Amino acid sequence: MIIIGEKINSTLKAIRPAIEKYDAATIQDIAKKQYNAGASYLDVNAGMFTDEEPERLTWLINTVQEVVDAPFSIDSPSPKAIEAALKVNRNSKPIINSITDEEERYNAIMPLAVQYNTGIIALCMDDTGMPETTDERVVIAERLIEKLTKEGILLEDIYIDPLIRPIGTGSHYGIVAIETIRKVKAEFPGVHIACGLSNISFGIPARKLMNQTFLVAAMAAGMDGAILDPLDKKLMSFMYATEALLGQDDFCMNYLTKFREGEIEV
Amino acid sequence: MIIIGEKINSTLKAIRPAIEKYDAATIQDIAKKQYNAGASYLDVNAGMFTDEEPERLTWLINTVQEVVDAPFSIDSPSPKAIEAALKVNRNSKPIINSITDEEERYNAIMPLAVQYNTGIIALCMDDTGMPETTDERVVIAERLIEKLTKEGILLEDIYIDPLIRPIGTGSHYGIVAIETIRKVKAEFPGVHIACGLSNISFGIPARKLMNQTFLVAAMAAGMDGAILDPLDKKLMSFMYATEALLGQDDFCMNYLTKFREGEIEV
Repeated sequence: MIIIGEKINSTLKAIRPAIEKYDAATIQDIAKKQYNAGASYLDVNAGMFTDEEPERLTWLINTVQEVVDAPFSIDSPSPKAIEAALKVNRNSKPIINSITDEEERYNAIMPLAVQYNTGIIALCMDDTGMPETTDERVVIAERLIEKLTKEGILLEDIYIDPLIRPIGTGSHYGIVAIETIRKVKAEFPGVHIACGLSNISFGIPARKLMNQTFLVAAMAAGMDGAILDPLDKKLMSFMYATEALLGQDDFCMNYLTKFREGEIEV
Repeated sequence: MIIIGEKINSTLKAIRPAIEKYDAATIQDIAKKQYNAGASYLDVNAGMFTDEEPERLTWLINTVQEVVDAPFSIDSPSPKAIEAALKVNRNSKPIINSITDEEERYNAIMPLAVQYNTGIIALCMDDTGMPETTDERVVIAERLIEKLTKEGILLEDIYIDPLIRPIGTGSHYGIVAIETIRKVKAEFPGVHIACGLSNISFGIPARKLMNQTFLVAAMAAGMDGAILDPLDKKLMSFMYATEALLGQDDFCMNYLTKFREGEIEV
Protein backbone atom coordinates (compact mmCIF):
# COMPACT_ATOMS: atom_id res chain seq x y z
CA MET A 1 0.00 0.00 0.00
CA ILE A 2 1.00 3.55 -0.75
CA ILE A 3 0.37 5.55 2.41
CA ILE A 4 -0.06 9.30 2.05
CA GLY A 5 0.31 10.81 5.52
CA GLU A 6 -2.47 13.34 6.04
CA LYS A 7 -1.42 15.16 9.18
CA ILE A 8 0.31 18.29 7.84
CA ASN A 9 -2.96 19.96 7.00
CA SER A 10 -3.99 23.52 7.80
CA THR A 11 -7.56 22.41 8.52
CA LEU A 12 -6.34 20.45 11.57
CA LYS A 13 -6.54 22.23 14.94
CA ALA A 14 -3.06 21.15 15.99
CA ILE A 15 -1.44 22.21 12.74
CA ARG A 16 -2.96 25.51 11.72
CA PRO A 17 -1.36 27.54 14.57
CA ALA A 18 2.00 25.88 13.85
CA ILE A 19 1.85 27.13 10.26
CA GLU A 20 0.55 30.51 11.44
CA LYS A 21 3.56 30.97 13.76
CA TYR A 22 6.11 29.39 11.43
CA ASP A 23 6.71 26.79 14.13
CA ALA A 24 9.15 24.58 12.21
CA ALA A 25 9.81 22.20 15.12
CA THR A 26 6.17 21.08 15.35
CA ILE A 27 5.88 20.55 11.60
CA GLN A 28 9.18 18.70 11.39
CA ASP A 29 8.24 16.50 14.32
CA ILE A 30 4.94 15.43 12.76
CA ALA A 31 6.69 14.89 9.41
CA LYS A 32 9.30 12.60 10.95
CA LYS A 33 6.72 10.69 12.96
CA GLN A 34 4.58 10.00 9.90
CA TYR A 35 7.61 8.95 7.87
CA ASN A 36 8.81 6.59 10.60
CA ALA A 37 5.29 5.12 10.89
CA GLY A 38 5.37 4.10 7.24
CA ALA A 39 4.14 7.06 5.18
CA SER A 40 5.32 6.77 1.55
CA TYR A 41 4.25 10.39 0.84
CA LEU A 42 3.66 13.37 3.10
CA ASP A 43 0.61 15.44 2.25
CA VAL A 44 1.09 19.19 2.76
CA ASN A 45 -1.89 21.55 2.82
CA ALA A 46 -1.99 25.28 3.53
CA GLY A 47 -5.44 25.88 2.07
CA MET A 48 -6.75 27.72 5.13
CA PHE A 49 -4.38 30.61 4.40
CA THR A 50 -6.15 31.61 1.13
CA ASP A 51 -4.15 34.55 -0.27
CA GLU A 52 -1.03 33.47 1.55
CA GLU A 53 -1.37 29.84 0.46
CA PRO A 54 1.61 29.78 -1.97
CA GLU A 55 3.95 31.33 0.57
CA ARG A 56 2.74 29.11 3.44
CA LEU A 57 2.88 25.98 1.30
CA THR A 58 6.46 26.65 0.16
CA TRP A 59 7.39 27.25 3.80
CA LEU A 60 5.89 23.83 4.66
CA ILE A 61 7.84 22.14 1.86
CA ASN A 62 11.13 23.82 2.83
CA THR A 63 10.58 23.09 6.50
CA VAL A 64 9.81 19.41 5.98
CA GLN A 65 12.52 18.68 3.42
CA GLU A 66 15.15 19.91 5.86
CA VAL A 67 14.53 16.79 7.94
CA VAL A 68 12.70 14.16 5.88
CA ASP A 69 13.28 13.09 2.31
CA ALA A 70 9.89 11.46 1.70
CA PRO A 71 8.17 12.77 -1.44
CA PHE A 72 5.30 15.22 -1.03
CA SER A 73 1.64 15.08 -1.87
CA ILE A 74 1.00 18.74 -2.74
CA ASP A 75 -2.55 19.27 -1.55
CA SER A 76 -4.21 22.25 -3.19
CA PRO A 77 -6.76 23.09 -5.87
CA SER A 78 -4.76 26.25 -6.68
CA PRO A 79 -2.39 26.11 -9.67
CA LYS A 80 -0.46 29.07 -8.24
CA ALA A 81 0.14 27.37 -4.90
CA ILE A 82 0.99 24.05 -6.57
CA GLU A 83 3.54 25.67 -8.87
CA ALA A 84 5.16 27.57 -6.03
CA ALA A 85 5.46 24.30 -4.11
CA LEU A 86 6.89 22.41 -7.10
CA LYS A 87 9.53 25.13 -7.60
CA VAL A 88 10.98 24.73 -4.12
CA ASN A 89 10.58 20.95 -3.85
CA ARG A 90 13.94 19.13 -3.63
CA ASN A 91 12.63 15.73 -2.47
CA SER A 92 11.90 13.00 -5.00
CA LYS A 93 8.97 12.90 -7.42
CA PRO A 94 5.89 14.42 -5.74
CA ILE A 95 2.18 13.88 -6.31
CA ILE A 96 -0.19 16.73 -7.10
CA ASN A 97 -3.36 16.37 -4.97
CA SER A 98 -5.50 16.88 -7.03
CA ILE A 99 -6.84 17.38 -10.51
CA THR A 100 -10.46 16.85 -11.64
CA ASP A 101 -12.09 16.83 -15.04
CA GLU A 102 -13.50 20.31 -14.42
CA GLU A 103 -12.25 22.17 -17.49
CA GLU A 104 -10.67 25.17 -15.79
CA ARG A 105 -8.99 23.15 -13.06
CA TYR A 106 -7.82 20.50 -15.52
CA ASN A 107 -6.33 22.98 -17.95
CA ALA A 108 -4.48 24.85 -15.22
CA ILE A 109 -3.08 21.87 -13.32
CA MET A 110 -2.37 19.26 -16.00
CA PRO A 111 0.54 21.26 -17.54
CA LEU A 112 2.21 21.46 -14.12
CA ALA A 113 2.14 17.68 -13.79
CA VAL A 114 3.73 17.39 -17.25
CA GLN A 115 6.32 20.14 -16.78
CA TYR A 116 7.46 18.97 -13.35
CA ASN A 117 7.01 15.24 -14.06
CA THR A 118 4.85 14.51 -11.05
CA GLY A 119 2.33 11.91 -10.02
CA ILE A 120 -1.24 13.16 -9.88
CA ILE A 121 -4.37 12.32 -7.92
CA ALA A 122 -7.36 12.53 -10.29
CA LEU A 123 -10.75 12.98 -8.63
CA CYS A 124 -13.80 11.50 -10.37
CA MET A 125 -15.58 14.81 -10.78
CA ASP A 126 -16.33 17.14 -13.69
CA ASP A 127 -18.24 20.31 -14.55
CA THR A 128 -21.59 18.52 -14.24
CA GLY A 129 -21.01 18.31 -10.47
CA MET A 130 -20.58 15.44 -8.06
CA PRO A 131 -21.30 12.11 -9.76
CA GLU A 132 -24.02 9.98 -8.24
CA THR A 133 -23.46 6.47 -9.61
CA THR A 134 -20.61 4.04 -10.14
CA ASP A 135 -20.93 4.30 -13.92
CA GLU A 136 -20.70 8.10 -13.88
CA ARG A 137 -17.50 7.84 -11.86
CA VAL A 138 -16.01 5.17 -14.12
CA VAL A 139 -16.72 7.29 -17.21
CA ILE A 140 -14.94 10.29 -15.67
CA ALA A 141 -12.01 8.09 -14.60
CA GLU A 142 -11.70 6.68 -18.14
CA ARG A 143 -11.77 10.20 -19.62
CA LEU A 144 -9.16 11.52 -17.17
CA ILE A 145 -6.87 8.54 -17.74
CA GLU A 146 -7.15 8.91 -21.51
CA LYS A 147 -6.43 12.65 -21.44
CA LEU A 148 -3.57 12.44 -18.96
CA THR A 149 -1.81 9.57 -20.71
CA LYS A 150 -2.15 11.42 -24.03
CA GLU A 151 -0.09 14.20 -22.44
CA GLY A 152 2.62 11.66 -21.68
CA ILE A 153 1.77 10.99 -18.03
CA LEU A 154 2.38 7.32 -17.21
CA LEU A 155 -0.44 5.12 -15.94
CA GLU A 156 1.62 4.38 -12.84
CA ASP A 157 1.74 8.12 -12.05
CA ILE A 158 -2.06 8.43 -12.00
CA TYR A 159 -3.93 7.93 -8.74
CA ILE A 160 -7.70 7.69 -9.30
CA ASP A 161 -9.78 8.89 -6.35
CA PRO A 162 -13.37 7.61 -6.75
CA LEU A 163 -14.70 10.55 -4.72
CA ILE A 164 -15.97 9.11 -1.48
CA ARG A 165 -19.28 10.45 -0.20
CA PRO A 166 -20.64 9.79 3.30
CA ILE A 167 -22.88 6.73 3.74
CA GLY A 168 -24.80 8.83 6.25
CA THR A 169 -26.09 10.91 3.32
CA GLY A 170 -26.82 7.93 1.03
CA SER A 171 -26.81 4.22 1.90
CA HIS A 172 -25.49 3.36 -1.56
CA TYR A 173 -22.31 5.47 -1.44
CA GLY A 174 -20.22 2.69 0.12
CA ILE A 175 -21.05 0.21 -2.63
CA VAL A 176 -20.61 2.96 -5.24
CA ALA A 177 -17.08 3.63 -3.99
CA ILE A 178 -16.16 -0.05 -3.77
CA GLU A 179 -17.56 -0.88 -7.21
CA THR A 180 -15.83 2.13 -8.79
CA ILE A 181 -12.52 0.95 -7.36
CA ARG A 182 -13.10 -2.59 -8.64
CA LYS A 183 -14.11 -1.49 -12.14
CA VAL A 184 -11.35 1.09 -12.66
CA LYS A 185 -8.69 -1.31 -11.38
CA ALA A 186 -10.03 -4.12 -13.62
CA GLU A 187 -9.97 -1.86 -16.68
CA PHE A 188 -6.64 -0.17 -15.89
CA PRO A 189 -4.52 -2.52 -13.75
CA GLY A 190 -1.60 -0.09 -14.14
CA VAL A 191 -3.19 2.92 -12.43
CA HIS A 192 -3.22 3.43 -8.70
CA ILE A 193 -6.42 3.94 -6.74
CA ALA A 194 -6.04 6.27 -3.78
CA CYS A 195 -8.82 7.53 -1.52
CA GLY A 196 -9.21 9.75 1.44
CA LEU A 197 -10.81 7.33 3.89
CA SER A 198 -12.57 9.46 6.42
CA ASN A 199 -15.29 11.00 4.23
CA ILE A 200 -17.15 7.70 4.22
CA SER A 201 -18.01 8.03 7.92
CA PHE A 202 -18.83 11.73 8.05
CA GLY A 203 -21.89 12.33 10.23
CA ILE A 204 -22.24 8.84 11.74
CA PRO A 205 -20.98 7.64 15.13
CA ALA A 206 -18.02 5.32 15.75
CA ARG A 207 -16.25 6.81 12.76
CA LYS A 208 -12.99 4.97 13.39
CA LEU A 209 -14.77 1.61 13.16
CA MET A 210 -16.33 2.61 9.85
CA ASN A 211 -13.03 3.94 8.48
CA GLN A 212 -11.31 0.65 9.36
CA THR A 213 -14.14 -1.28 7.71
CA PHE A 214 -13.92 0.83 4.57
CA LEU A 215 -10.12 0.48 4.40
CA VAL A 216 -10.42 -3.32 4.36
CA ALA A 217 -13.29 -3.43 1.84
CA ALA A 218 -11.64 -0.88 -0.48
CA MET A 219 -8.29 -2.71 -0.40
CA ALA A 220 -10.08 -5.99 -1.16
CA ALA A 221 -11.61 -4.24 -4.20
CA GLY A 222 -8.22 -3.05 -5.49
CA MET A 223 -7.40 0.24 -3.73
CA ASP A 224 -3.62 0.42 -3.38
CA GLY A 225 -3.20 3.87 -1.88
CA ALA A 226 -4.83 5.86 0.91
CA ILE A 227 -4.64 9.28 2.46
CA LEU A 228 -4.74 8.53 6.16
CA ASP A 229 -3.14 9.07 9.54
CA PRO A 230 -0.16 6.69 9.70
CA LEU A 231 0.08 7.39 13.45
CA ASP A 232 -3.28 5.66 13.93
CA LYS A 233 -1.85 2.32 15.02
CA LYS A 234 -5.17 0.51 14.90
CA LEU A 235 -5.86 1.63 11.34
CA MET A 236 -2.34 0.68 10.27
CA SER A 237 -2.85 -2.74 11.91
CA PHE A 238 -5.85 -3.31 9.64
CA MET A 239 -3.77 -2.24 6.68
CA TYR A 240 -1.05 -4.81 7.50
CA ALA A 241 -3.71 -7.49 8.17
CA THR A 242 -5.42 -6.78 4.85
CA GLU A 243 -2.14 -6.90 2.93
CA ALA A 244 -1.49 -10.32 4.49
CA LEU A 245 -5.06 -11.50 3.81
CA LEU A 246 -4.84 -10.43 0.16
CA GLY A 247 -1.55 -12.22 -0.46
CA GLN A 248 0.39 -8.96 -0.80
CA ASP A 249 2.69 -9.95 2.03
CA ASP A 250 4.57 -13.17 1.27
CA PHE A 251 4.42 -15.66 4.13
CA CYS A 252 2.84 -12.84 6.22
CA MET A 253 6.44 -11.71 6.87
CA ASN A 254 5.67 -8.02 7.25
CA TYR A 255 2.64 -8.74 9.42
CA LEU A 256 4.70 -10.99 11.68
CA THR A 257 7.50 -8.41 11.84
CA LYS A 258 5.09 -5.62 12.75
CA PHE A 259 3.58 -7.86 15.41
CA ARG A 260 6.99 -8.57 16.93
CA GLU A 261 7.76 -4.84 16.88
CA GLY A 262 4.56 -4.14 18.83
CA GLU A 263 3.00 -2.29 15.89
CA ILE A 264 -0.08 -4.53 15.66
CA GLU A 265 -2.94 -3.43 17.89
CA VAL A 266 -5.73 -5.97 18.43
CA MET B 1 -26.21 -11.42 7.60
CA ILE B 2 -27.11 -14.89 8.78
CA ILE B 3 -25.23 -15.49 12.01
CA ILE B 4 -24.63 -19.07 13.08
CA GLY B 5 -23.62 -18.99 16.74
CA GLU B 6 -20.63 -21.30 17.20
CA LYS B 7 -20.35 -21.61 20.96
CA ILE B 8 -22.18 -24.88 21.73
CA ASN B 9 -19.31 -27.00 20.53
CA SER B 10 -17.77 -29.98 22.28
CA THR B 11 -14.27 -28.96 21.16
CA LEU B 12 -14.49 -25.85 23.37
CA LYS B 13 -12.93 -26.08 26.84
CA ALA B 14 -15.89 -24.42 28.54
CA ILE B 15 -18.49 -26.59 26.82
CA ARG B 16 -17.14 -30.13 26.77
CA PRO B 17 -17.43 -30.68 30.56
CA ALA B 18 -20.95 -29.22 30.49
CA ILE B 19 -22.00 -31.83 27.93
CA GLU B 20 -20.09 -34.53 29.83
CA LYS B 21 -22.00 -33.77 33.04
CA TYR B 22 -25.36 -33.09 31.35
CA ASP B 23 -25.16 -29.57 32.80
CA ALA B 24 -28.29 -28.16 31.16
CA ALA B 25 -28.08 -24.74 32.86
CA THR B 26 -24.70 -23.91 31.30
CA ILE B 27 -25.80 -24.99 27.83
CA GLN B 28 -29.11 -23.13 28.08
CA ASP B 29 -27.37 -20.01 29.31
CA ILE B 30 -24.95 -19.92 26.37
CA ALA B 31 -27.81 -20.65 23.96
CA LYS B 32 -29.89 -17.73 25.27
CA LYS B 33 -26.92 -15.37 25.26
CA GLN B 34 -26.10 -16.16 21.64
CA TYR B 35 -29.72 -15.80 20.60
CA ASN B 36 -30.06 -12.44 22.35
CA ALA B 37 -26.81 -11.26 20.75
CA GLY B 38 -28.27 -11.83 17.28
CA ALA B 39 -27.62 -15.45 16.31
CA SER B 40 -30.03 -16.59 13.58
CA TYR B 41 -28.99 -20.24 14.06
CA LEU B 42 -27.39 -22.08 16.96
CA ASP B 43 -24.68 -24.54 15.98
CA VAL B 44 -24.63 -27.71 18.11
CA ASN B 45 -21.65 -30.05 18.03
CA ALA B 46 -20.99 -33.17 20.11
CA GLY B 47 -18.27 -34.56 17.91
CA MET B 48 -15.80 -35.12 20.75
CA PHE B 49 -18.01 -37.86 22.17
CA THR B 50 -17.45 -40.23 19.19
CA ASP B 51 -19.55 -43.35 19.94
CA GLU B 52 -21.89 -41.36 22.14
CA GLU B 53 -22.29 -38.53 19.62
CA PRO B 54 -25.93 -39.25 18.63
CA GLU B 55 -27.05 -39.44 22.23
CA ARG B 56 -25.10 -36.34 23.32
CA LEU B 57 -26.25 -34.35 20.30
CA THR B 58 -29.93 -35.16 20.91
CA TRP B 59 -29.46 -34.15 24.54
CA LEU B 60 -28.04 -30.79 23.33
CA ILE B 61 -30.98 -30.25 20.97
CA ASN B 62 -33.54 -31.14 23.65
CA THR B 63 -31.80 -29.03 26.26
CA VAL B 64 -31.58 -25.94 24.05
CA GLN B 65 -35.07 -26.10 22.57
CA GLU B 66 -36.55 -26.05 26.07
CA VAL B 67 -35.49 -22.41 26.33
CA VAL B 68 -34.73 -20.99 22.86
CA ASP B 69 -36.64 -21.44 19.63
CA ALA B 70 -33.84 -20.45 17.23
CA PRO B 71 -33.26 -23.05 14.52
CA PHE B 72 -30.24 -25.32 14.83
CA SER B 73 -27.14 -25.82 12.76
CA ILE B 74 -26.56 -29.54 13.29
CA ASP B 75 -22.81 -29.82 13.21
CA SER B 76 -21.59 -33.32 12.45
CA PRO B 77 -20.11 -35.37 9.62
CA SER B 78 -21.99 -38.45 10.96
CA PRO B 79 -25.28 -39.35 9.23
CA LYS B 80 -26.30 -41.32 12.31
CA ALA B 81 -25.81 -38.36 14.65
CA ILE B 82 -27.48 -35.95 12.22
CA GLU B 83 -30.53 -38.17 11.83
CA ALA B 84 -30.87 -38.64 15.59
CA ALA B 85 -30.75 -34.84 15.98
CA LEU B 86 -33.29 -34.24 13.21
CA LYS B 87 -35.69 -36.73 14.85
CA VAL B 88 -35.83 -34.82 18.15
CA ASN B 89 -35.69 -31.30 16.67
CA ARG B 90 -38.87 -29.29 17.35
CA ASN B 91 -37.52 -25.83 16.46
CA SER B 92 -38.00 -24.43 12.96
CA LYS B 93 -36.13 -25.56 9.83
CA PRO B 94 -32.55 -26.48 10.74
CA ILE B 95 -29.34 -26.50 8.72
CA ILE B 96 -27.19 -29.59 8.37
CA ASN B 97 -23.52 -28.65 8.88
CA SER B 98 -22.23 -30.10 6.57
CA ILE B 99 -22.16 -32.06 3.37
CA THR B 100 -19.26 -32.33 0.91
CA ASP B 101 -18.95 -33.81 -2.55
CA GLU B 102 -17.12 -36.84 -1.12
CA GLU B 103 -19.20 -39.70 -2.49
CA GLU B 104 -19.82 -41.60 0.72
CA ARG B 105 -20.60 -38.51 2.80
CA TYR B 106 -22.78 -37.02 0.07
CA ASN B 107 -24.82 -40.18 -0.41
CA ALA B 108 -25.41 -40.63 3.30
CA ILE B 109 -26.30 -37.01 4.18
CA MET B 110 -28.14 -35.70 1.12
CA PRO B 111 -31.22 -37.95 1.70
CA LEU B 112 -31.53 -36.58 5.25
CA ALA B 113 -31.67 -33.00 3.95
CA VAL B 114 -34.41 -34.03 1.51
CA GLN B 115 -36.41 -36.17 3.95
CA TYR B 116 -36.34 -33.61 6.77
CA ASN B 117 -36.49 -30.54 4.49
CA THR B 118 -33.46 -28.80 5.94
CA GLY B 119 -30.98 -26.20 4.85
CA ILE B 120 -27.50 -27.55 4.19
CA ILE B 121 -23.96 -26.23 4.38
CA ALA B 122 -22.01 -27.59 1.41
CA LEU B 123 -18.24 -27.60 1.77
CA CYS B 124 -16.13 -27.19 -1.39
CA MET B 125 -14.35 -30.50 -1.02
CA ASP B 126 -14.49 -33.87 -2.79
CA ASP B 127 -12.76 -37.24 -2.90
CA THR B 128 -9.69 -35.76 -4.59
CA GLY B 129 -8.89 -33.98 -1.29
CA MET B 130 -8.65 -30.34 -0.26
CA PRO B 131 -8.90 -28.07 -3.31
CA GLU B 132 -5.98 -25.71 -3.88
CA THR B 133 -7.28 -23.03 -6.24
CA THR B 134 -10.34 -20.83 -6.66
CA ASP B 135 -11.36 -22.63 -9.84
CA GLU B 136 -11.24 -26.05 -8.20
CA ARG B 137 -13.53 -24.73 -5.45
CA VAL B 138 -15.95 -23.14 -7.90
CA VAL B 139 -16.21 -26.38 -9.90
CA ILE B 140 -17.06 -28.34 -6.73
CA ALA B 141 -19.59 -25.67 -5.70
CA GLU B 142 -21.26 -25.83 -9.13
CA ARG B 143 -21.44 -29.63 -8.96
CA LEU B 144 -22.87 -29.63 -5.42
CA ILE B 145 -25.47 -26.98 -6.30
CA GLU B 146 -26.50 -28.89 -9.41
CA LYS B 147 -26.83 -32.20 -7.57
CA LEU B 148 -28.63 -30.78 -4.54
CA THR B 149 -31.15 -28.75 -6.56
CA LYS B 150 -31.85 -31.83 -8.71
CA GLU B 151 -32.96 -33.55 -5.51
CA GLY B 152 -35.43 -30.70 -4.93
CA ILE B 153 -33.39 -28.67 -2.44
CA LEU B 154 -33.98 -24.95 -3.01
CA LEU B 155 -31.08 -22.63 -3.88
CA GLU B 156 -31.94 -20.56 -0.82
CA ASP B 157 -31.46 -23.62 1.40
CA ILE B 158 -27.90 -24.17 0.20
CA TYR B 159 -25.01 -22.52 2.06
CA ILE B 160 -21.75 -22.83 0.15
CA ASP B 161 -18.66 -22.86 2.36
CA PRO B 162 -15.56 -22.13 0.22
CA LEU B 163 -13.37 -24.09 2.65
CA ILE B 164 -11.15 -21.56 4.33
CA ARG B 165 -7.51 -22.50 4.76
CA PRO B 166 -5.04 -20.59 6.97
CA ILE B 167 -3.06 -17.82 5.29
CA GLY B 168 -0.20 -18.85 7.58
CA THR B 169 0.13 -22.03 5.49
CA GLY B 170 -0.26 -20.30 2.10
CA SER B 171 -0.25 -16.56 1.33
CA HIS B 172 -2.80 -17.10 -1.46
CA TYR B 173 -5.52 -18.72 0.64
CA GLY B 174 -7.14 -15.41 1.56
CA ILE B 175 -7.56 -14.33 -2.05
CA VAL B 176 -8.67 -17.85 -2.99
CA ALA B 177 -11.46 -17.68 -0.38
CA ILE B 178 -12.53 -14.17 -1.38
CA GLU B 179 -12.53 -14.92 -5.10
CA THR B 180 -14.44 -18.18 -4.59
CA ILE B 181 -17.12 -16.26 -2.68
CA ARG B 182 -17.32 -13.61 -5.41
CA LYS B 183 -17.54 -16.12 -8.26
CA VAL B 184 -20.08 -18.47 -6.67
CA LYS B 185 -22.30 -15.53 -5.61
CA ALA B 186 -22.10 -14.01 -9.11
CA GLU B 187 -23.04 -17.31 -10.74
CA PHE B 188 -25.74 -18.27 -8.20
CA PRO B 189 -27.14 -15.10 -6.58
CA GLY B 190 -29.80 -17.25 -4.89
CA VAL B 191 -27.45 -19.41 -2.80
CA HIS B 192 -26.03 -18.34 0.52
CA ILE B 193 -22.33 -18.26 1.24
CA ALA B 194 -21.43 -19.15 4.80
CA CYS B 195 -17.94 -19.59 6.22
CA GLY B 196 -16.34 -20.43 9.45
CA LEU B 197 -14.16 -17.34 9.97
CA SER B 198 -11.46 -18.39 12.33
CA ASN B 199 -9.60 -20.92 10.15
CA ILE B 200 -8.12 -18.04 8.15
CA SER B 201 -5.97 -16.90 11.08
CA PHE B 202 -4.87 -20.29 12.39
CA GLY B 203 -1.20 -20.18 13.37
CA ILE B 204 -0.61 -16.43 13.11
CA PRO B 205 -0.66 -13.87 15.93
CA ALA B 206 -3.39 -11.26 16.57
CA ARG B 207 -6.00 -13.72 15.30
CA LYS B 208 -8.95 -11.51 16.24
CA LEU B 209 -7.64 -8.69 14.05
CA MET B 210 -7.29 -11.07 11.11
CA ASN B 211 -10.73 -12.59 11.67
CA GLN B 212 -12.29 -9.09 11.69
CA THR B 213 -10.40 -8.23 8.51
CA PHE B 214 -11.56 -11.41 6.81
CA LEU B 215 -15.18 -10.87 7.88
CA VAL B 216 -15.22 -7.44 6.19
CA ALA B 217 -13.46 -8.59 3.01
CA ALA B 218 -15.62 -11.73 2.68
CA MET B 219 -18.85 -9.77 3.20
CA ALA B 220 -17.73 -7.23 0.60
CA ALA B 221 -17.24 -10.17 -1.81
CA GLY B 222 -20.76 -11.51 -1.19
CA MET B 223 -20.63 -13.74 1.90
CA ASP B 224 -24.01 -13.47 3.64
CA GLY B 225 -23.58 -15.97 6.45
CA ALA B 226 -20.90 -16.77 9.01
CA ILE B 227 -20.25 -19.25 11.77
CA LEU B 228 -18.90 -17.06 14.54
CA ASP B 229 -19.13 -16.04 18.18
CA PRO B 230 -22.04 -13.58 18.43
CA LEU B 231 -20.88 -12.67 21.94
CA ASP B 232 -17.72 -11.16 20.44
CA LYS B 233 -18.94 -7.55 20.52
CA LYS B 234 -16.04 -6.22 18.49
CA LEU B 235 -16.56 -8.75 15.70
CA MET B 236 -20.30 -8.05 15.68
CA SER B 237 -19.52 -4.29 15.49
CA PHE B 238 -17.58 -4.94 12.28
CA MET B 239 -20.50 -6.95 10.98
CA TYR B 240 -22.92 -4.07 11.59
CA ALA B 241 -20.44 -1.56 10.11
CA THR B 242 -19.96 -3.70 7.00
CA GLU B 243 -23.70 -4.10 6.50
CA ALA B 244 -24.04 -0.31 6.66
CA LEU B 245 -21.05 0.20 4.34
CA LEU B 246 -22.46 -2.24 1.77
CA GLY B 247 -25.88 -0.59 1.70
CA GLN B 248 -27.56 -3.56 3.41
CA ASP B 249 -28.78 -1.31 6.23
CA ASP B 250 -31.04 1.46 4.94
CA PHE B 251 -30.08 4.86 6.30
CA CYS B 252 -27.65 3.02 8.62
CA MET B 253 -30.66 2.56 10.92
CA ASN B 254 -29.54 -0.72 12.46
CA TYR B 255 -25.98 0.58 12.91
CA LEU B 256 -27.27 3.71 14.64
CA THR B 257 -29.62 1.65 16.83
CA LYS B 258 -26.82 -0.72 17.85
CA PHE B 259 -24.65 2.29 18.64
CA ARG B 260 -27.34 3.81 20.85
CA GLU B 261 -27.77 0.46 22.62
CA GLY B 262 -24.05 0.36 23.39
CA GLU B 263 -23.49 -2.63 21.11
CA ILE B 264 -20.90 -0.93 18.90
CA GLU B 265 -17.35 -1.24 20.18
CA VAL B 266 -14.75 1.05 18.62
